[in-house]
Amino acid sequence: MSGPSVGVDVGGTKILAVLTDADGALHAEARRATPPAADAPGVVVADTVAEVLDDLAVAAGRDLSDLPLGVGVPGMLSLDGVLVAAPNLPSASGADLGAVLSARLPGRPTVLANDADAAAVAEHRLGAGRGIDDFVLVALGTGIGGGVVANGRLVRGRGGFAGEIGHVVVNPAGPRCPCGRRGCWERYASGAGVARLSREAAIAGRLTALVARLGDPEAVRGEDVTHAAAAGDREALAVLEEVGWWLALGLANLAAVLDPARFVLGGGLSEASELLLPPTRRHLVGLLEAGERRPPIEVVAAELGSRAGAIGAALLAAGD
Amino acid sequence: MSGPSVGVDVGGTKILAVLTDADGALHAEARRATPPAADAPGVVVADTVAEVLDDLAVAAGRDLSDLPLGVGVPGMLSLDGVLVAAPNLPSASGADLGAVLSARLPGRPTVLANDADAAAVAEHRLGAGRGIDDFVLVALGTGIGGGVVANGRLVRGRGGFAGEIGHVVVNPAGPRCPCGRRGCWERYASGAGVARLSREAAIAGRLTALVARLGDPEAVRGEDVTHAAAAGDREALAVLEEVGWWLALGLANLAAVLDPARFVLGGGLSEASELLLPPTRRHLVGLLEAGERRPPIEVVAAELGSRAGAIGAALLAAGD
Repeated sequence: MSGPSVGVDVGGTKILAVLTDADGALHAEARRATPPAADAPGVVVADTVAEVLDDLAVAAGRDLSDLPLGVGVPGMLSLDGVLVAAPNLPSASGADLGAVLSARLPGRPTVLANDADAAAVAEHRLGAGRGIDDFVLVALGTGIGGGVVANGRLVRGRGGFAGEIGHVVVNPAGPRCPCGRRGCWERYASGAGVARLSREAAIAGRLTALVARLGDPEAVRGEDVTHAAAAGDREALAVLEEVGWWLALGLANLAAVLDPARFVLGGGLSEASELLLPPTRRHLVGLLEAGERRPPIEVVAAELGSRAGAIGAALLAAGD
Repeated sequence: MSGPSVGVDVGGTKILAVLTDADGALHAEARRATPPAADAPGVVVADTVAEVLDDLAVAAGRDLSDLPLGVGVPGMLSLDGVLVAAPNLPSASGADLGAVLSARLPGRPTVLANDADAAAVAEHRLGAGRGIDDFVLVALGTGIGGGVVANGRLVRGRGGFAGEIGHVVVNPAGPRCPCGRRGCWERYASGAGVARLSREAAIAGRLTALVARLGDPEAVRGEDVTHAAAAGDREALAVLEEVGWWLALGLANLAAVLDPARFVLGGGLSEASELLLPPTRRHLVGLLEAGERRPPIEVVAAELGSRAGAIGAALLAAGD
């Protein structure tokens, strides 16, 4: 077993740092808001990472600069540390993050990883993927990120861009995606998907109670529908049923390629995820090829919550 | 290096057996027609496999029954040898093929594999995937089969059903697929896709020269369009351009999940594959996420031709 290490998860809204050890025990943590975009890509992010690491050392009551350091970031991170595309982290999109971080943190070698890959490593080692050789971590947030584990190993691909599962196209004539194409899975089954399908339902007159309360169908947000569904609103539940169908369709697509034992649903959409689990499970069997004649594929919630990315980054830095 | 072994590829129309060694050198081969469906699933196939193995021993001039034996079959083969679904091999669909073969070939342990998985193993060891840790073999036939290699290893998944890439849904409102769902990739980009898009183009008046020659738009087959395209017919080339777009879309979907270094196109659609390579390559860059900012993903023809499945089955049997 390896010793303690430090993991940082750079998110779209906050940067979280943890001090952990190989069994995932959390010894200290610190967080700061993610800075807005600035001129030189990556520099303000690296500054904030350095600050949050100082905060973490204070919280831990010791110098941590000799510990292995891992940093998880959202987006298409190349194996050599370039953040090729990161719609949810505009302040670092395009940055040579490896170079920027090592300039800001001299003498402190840093392991960089995609955030969902890091979360998959953490769930594999300590969470819902423990002992499972083939699973996919599905990170539901504004978009959909992914971490693929096959034959017991994280699949990063040739350039590091594997796991971009939100951008599997499920309808080439579908709505435009920020990635530039149309009909990506995450247009239907992520936070953005919940928002879009909620708004469509409101405008089509399928969310009467909610619209009566909010006054304007255009004002209906995804969270409104999620909260209403959690409170038992049947019309809101019907919208999440539709989102669950699309979520299951994308999982069936991943199953066609990878045949995992399990899908682990994580990410920031936790309340919605909870509500999406039953319809997703219900639709998945019918959407899988030979769904009735193969062992069921489990769909479970991630276990490590919002710290999965930071813990996974720490594990990767420790050589896991 | 392992010694000689025997590989059998059970196809929809023929069963091919080869005697080969670890470097792929072919010492003998034999083939027979695939038998039509009969009552007990798998039995006639096992009988024909036994016969073609006898033929192979005659061709080799020696007894081969002590050599490792591998058998590749089309369809969803479970890790324990049950052919859960095989639309292109109705005579064995649903069979416990491991049990049926061991009853027919007593004392002769047999390694079973999906045919495209076997072809991927062969291309990895000896062909277009040599030295490449991350690639996907795309077997274009009536449908689309696949063999996924990630981190240098074949991905079979939890139950053995990985690589069913033809059944990634690219349009849930699309044409019905024999698998029971709608809009699977292979409806657009396989032999069946060429046939369907050709017929649609003929009926829509977009294949005037060909229809004038054949007399009836309903009579236009995929092969007619492929041959016409090979002869330079611009209208036929436009149909293959469309098929190439769909082929590239599905490859981009696989790239989102796996980020391979290379796609290796094999399978029975060889003349069409040759013609499909240029439009597929042309469209792929635009269909990949951040296609201009990442290293290009190569699309190349398979190298081992129609024997890839049999050679791969032999390699798997030899413990490769």
